[in-house]
Amino acid sequence: MGLIVQKFGGTSVADLDRIRNVAKRVARTFDQGNDVVVILSAMAGVTDNLIRMANQVTESPDKRELDVLLATGEQTTAALLAMTLRAMNYAAESILGHQAKVVTDCAFGNARILDIGADPIRALVQDRKIVVMAGFQGCDINGNITTLGRGGSDTSAVAIAAAIKADICEIYTDVDGIYTTDPNICPRARKMARISYDEMLEMASLGAKVLQIRSVEFAKKYNVPVHVRSSFSDEEGTMVVNEEASMEKLLVSGVTCDKNQARITLKKVPDQPGVAAKVFSPVSEAGIIIDMIIQNMRSGGQTDLTFTVPETDFKQAMAIAEQVATDIGAEEVLGDQNIAKVSVIGVGMKNHSGVAAKMFATLASENINIRLISTSEIRISCVVTEKYAELAVRVLHSAFGLDKP
Amino acid sequence: MGLIVQKFGGTSVADLDRIRNVAKRVARTFDQGNDVVVILSAMAGVTDNLIRMANQVTESPDKRELDVLLATGEQTTAALLAMTLRAMNYAAESILGHQAKVVTDCAFGNARILDIGADPIRALVQDRKIVVMAGFQGCDINGNITTLGRGGSDTSAVAIAAAIKADICEIYTDVDGIYTTDPNICPRARKMARISYDEMLEMASLGAKVLQIRSVEFAKKYNVPVHVRSSFSDEEGTMVVNEEASMEKLLVSGVTCDKNQARITLKKVPDQPGVAAKVFSPVSEAGIIIDMIIQNMRSGGQTDLTFTVPETDFKQAMAIAEQVATDIGAEEVLGDQNIAKVSVIGVGMKNHSGVAAKMFATLASENINIRLISTSEIRISCVVTEKYAELAVRVLHSAFGLDKP
Repeated sequence: MGLIVQKFGGTSVADLDRIRNVAKRVARTFDQGNDVVVILSAMAGVTDNLIRMANQVTESPDKRELDVLLATGEQTTAALLAMTLRAMNYAAESILGHQAKVVTDCAFGNARILDIGADPIRALVQDRKIVVMAGFQGCDINGNITTLGRGGSDTSAVAIAAAIKADICEIYTDVDGIYTTDPNICPRARKMARISYDEMLEMASLGAKVLQIRSVEFAKKYNVPVHVRSSFSDEEGTMVVNEEASMEKLLVSGVTCDKNQARITLKKVPDQPGVAAKVFSPVSEAGIIIDMIIQNMRSGGQTDLTFTVPETDFKQAMAIAEQVATDIGAEEVLGDQNIAKVSVIGVGMKNHSGVAAKMFATLASENINIRLISTSEIRISCVVTEKYAELAVRVLHSAFGLDKP
Repeated sequence: MGLIVQKFGGTSVADLDRIRNVAKRVARTFDQGNDVVVILSAMAGVTDNLIRMANQVTESPDKRELDVLLATGEQTTAALLAMTLRAMNYAAESILGHQAKVVTDCAFGNARILDIGADPIRALVQDRKIVVMAGFQGCDINGNITTLGRGGSDTSAVAIAAAIKADICEIYTDVDGIYTTDPNICPRARKMARISYDEMLEMASLGAKVLQIRSVEFAKKYNVPVHVRSSFSDEEGTMVVNEEASMEKLLVSGVTCDKNQARITLKKVPDQPGVAAKVFSPVSEAGIIIDMIIQNMRSGGQTDLTFTVPETDFKQAMAIAEQVATDIGAEEVLGDQNIAKVSVIGVGMKNHSGVAAKMFATLASENINIRLISTSEIRISCVVTEKYAELAVRVLHSAFGLDKP
């Protein structure tokens, strides 16, 4: 018996039949004596349709008004689920972002939660009501409707769970947990029983699109246990929790692969102070996120400057780089979209050396050339030619012992 | 130059092209130096679709949740129009019912406006913003979303116009004004330049579905001039205003016909005190609105009791009447769905006699039998057999001189 937050994604509420299934699951949890707060996404495809409609109005729709439009998606599913539960004789009540006092900053389209006044939801829970909240939405201090960005309902769920001090936040989705790597690439991928917040953060930012990264940051900050599981089965999924001593026994917990990467190199840049800023300032001003940066020394007061950007921003970044190259007198600009970033992640790395060496050796044994390297405390990433990416994932998965149960 | 409220109905915002047309009209009014507050309905068909979806969930959806669902319709159009105006470089801003402080009672699905805090809209107008408000919706004092019932956006518009002391409330719709009668029945019907609130109230309640009746009550109470006009042309429509001396020169302003009527007669009811209550209490408890009641005296302490109900409630009312007839010992219950109520309306009647006599004589001259009669200060209604209804409208329209310009 406890206070449980259950979040259901777009595919879990894609039609009325699935909403009925969600209602049954919520009802069962409630009948077991738990208090339940449900957070919903919009029906799969609805948000995209609304964005498409807005883009028919104008190429760059006003962001405030776009949020007013998008917020209808979650409002619809919240009303429908509450209605369904009511028809099953459960005292359910829907609540919208502004009603639940989900206060955000004013960054329409990508707002950050500043505060959640837990009282409205707590009051409903104390009446033994099943609370059905529209995810993804909040309001700023002036009462304007805001949305939290792609996957924002995850963040709604974890933030609500933190605010009302829920015992657990269950994220129901169309996969049944977090895997050691992408099962489509590596058939030997295994579902993890547990993963630490930090590992999940690295996984999320590297393309394992199960949880919005901000939701994991929230979970870590407020120590909310998150259970990622399938809405189509009763199987246990993966617990995302605080780091545990046992986790450190494993050197590497998972292998990820991000193909949405492109590399840009400026050749023979004059090696003068301030030259890096001249290159990277205009790129970041264009809102393009630079991931890795490498600077190679050359002879004769010149250097090569290489960086990676998301593949979707490649064209724009190339145009900027070519302009900058002319301005600073670099020789030429080379671009390559056929790259991928392969990473190994694990909290165990903190206390063990040799992971990087083992990674490089494993890739070398398959003749996979490493183009760029970057590391964090619990991650090592190598950029390789895209066509070798899947092979790299499989051999690393095996080399670090993740194939075995 | 003034403060103008413009309300656009569902057909006027049925798709993005029409929303663009609405935006152009609003922009033109604004460019003429006016302040503009726009009130919108949902796109034509959207509300019906949402109701259909709710009815797929359950036969009788929870009313609170249904309102949360329905409110998305107007939220969508408000966002889209504001977005369109923004793209045209007008400082437009959408506002929802709860943001505009449209406070209603708690009667979900058919809420009544208790109060409108004019400040949020006034503040936007003072910033020379075009305010785009979602009609049809409000919230109760606890912040629950409510809706105002079919045609509720008319009431939103007039109530807002009253609250912010607008100079005029323009209702843009798919007809170009109020006609002396239904042009589909009587080709000689003419558009009226002006009609009084009281006449409009009689017209609205008798089936001229141009304005929600509560909006006219609001307009009368707060003396808001209402201009009913077409959203597809620039032609002047019909002004709904306070009674004027000139109006009284016309005996009759309009003729209406309501075919959504059914008659129920209890034969040989024992003529005892309290018997009428026994008949009508269970009917009204079932939420069925009784329109006319006639009691005929018979010999032998018995009476015939006849009343009319909306045709849609006929089956239910008949079932109740048959139960009551058994209980009180009436002989039998007769029902007739093939009736229509034909009415003549005009403030001129107040000071002139002979209207009723002329109406009865006109119908008699065509051998149209009158089944029931009811009157108000400015209206005389006759129930006739449905197949004669259109003929009755035409001859009355002509007899009271409405054919002539």
